[in-house]
Amino acid sequence: MELACLDLEGVLVPEIWINVAERTGIEALRLTTRDIPDYDQLMRRRLDLLDQHGLTLPDIQRVIAGMGPLEGASEFLDWLRERFQVVILSDTYYEFAMPLMRQLGWPALFCHRLEVVEDRVVNYVLRQADSKRQAVRAFHELNFRVIAAGDSYNDTAMLAEAEAGILFRPPQNVIDEFPQFPVARTFQEMREEFRKASVRQM
Amino acid sequence: MELACLDLEGVLVPEIWINVAERTGIEALRLTTRDIPDYDQLMRRRLDLLDQHGLTLPDIQRVIAGMGPLEGASEFLDWLRERFQVVILSDTYYEFAMPLMRQLGWPALFCHRLEVVEDRVVNYVLRQADSKRQAVRAFHELNFRVIAAGDSYNDTAMLAEAEAGILFRPPQNVIDEFPQFPVARTFQEMREEFRKASVRQM
Repeated sequence: MELACLDLEGVLVPEIWINVAERTGIEALRLTTRDIPDYDQLMRRRLDLLDQHGLTLPDIQRVIAGMGPLEGASEFLDWLRERFQVVILSDTYYEFAMPLMRQLGWPALFCHRLEVVEDRVVNYVLRQADSKRQAVRAFHELNFRVIAAGDSYNDTAMLAEAEAGILFRPPQNVIDEFPQFPVARTFQEMREEFRKASVRQM
Repeated sequence: MELACLDLEGVLVPEIWINVAERTGIEALRLTTRDIPDYDQLMRRRLDLLDQHGLTLPDIQRVIAGMGPLEGASEFLDWLRERFQVVILSDTYYEFAMPLMRQLGWPALFCHRLEVVEDRVVNYVLRQADSKRQAVRAFHELNFRVIAAGDSYNDTAMLAEAEAGILFRPPQNVIDEFPQFPVARTFQEMREEFRKASVRQM
């Protein structure tokens, strides 16, 4: 029995923080762990910025709803759900992902959450460390064969833990460092890679 | 972070074997573990009966597609997916459930599978024993708080393992034996029970 685990940002939807930065004009929200390696410091900086600019959760959710899924992502996900059980594994937050999940037909999503007081985002709560790999391990205990797809460095632990891993539009350094994973650049190529990775005929 | 685990037959869709018996007129397909306590013997008898009547998997899938979900089940599931991550835990088989999952918008389903050769169902493969409870345990390892709902005796291990359990239209003997679980008789009552069981305000 096969289960497909998909990363969210960069695979089905745009990178959320970068797009919020672009759409709100708050350039500093573009900062990533490449700029501030400590994730907790980075998140506190982001939440401070939202506060300084008076952006509430509903404001940000409206911005995120306007992004929409990547072109072709909904059709790909529908194709995948007819053939595999699908769980989306992401390091984003439920409150941010919701407007996009609605547009994708509410697939199951395992990610983290925000603490919100009177519409203000006051804190973030990680469900667990190394959450993508831990989820694949849990699915293995349930006797699923897992095929995983993601786009970036932080997906490679999940891809390695799975029986098969697929890189979707990855940066060149990830391709170079992980030559064992096939690369898909279009959703059509992703379908082909999932077909190849499956032990079933489809 | 909260996850909702739902039984399938009797909660979202009709009892599959009983309805296949009614719609095909093969009365012996109504047999349950009350008649043949050994599940393996029961399943071999069922598969023999399908074979004797020349029923292929596509035939059965057409019959199952005609059943449709229970009245109000799709709307309830849509309501639930906006508020919880949802995984359906069932002891049915993917090949049988598929026509109904399509009508429910492809929620994630953890169940068992059939072995099919040239459209004939030749065997069944259980993903694991005690599969519903094991799934709740795995979700606990991923730090989810689980609210589970089911209708029958074989759901009570899942309900007990979860942080909160809800019985949906259960038979009287289950109500009597498990007075600790609240009972919902309509989807409106199920919504209320999920609201009460949640640690969040909704």
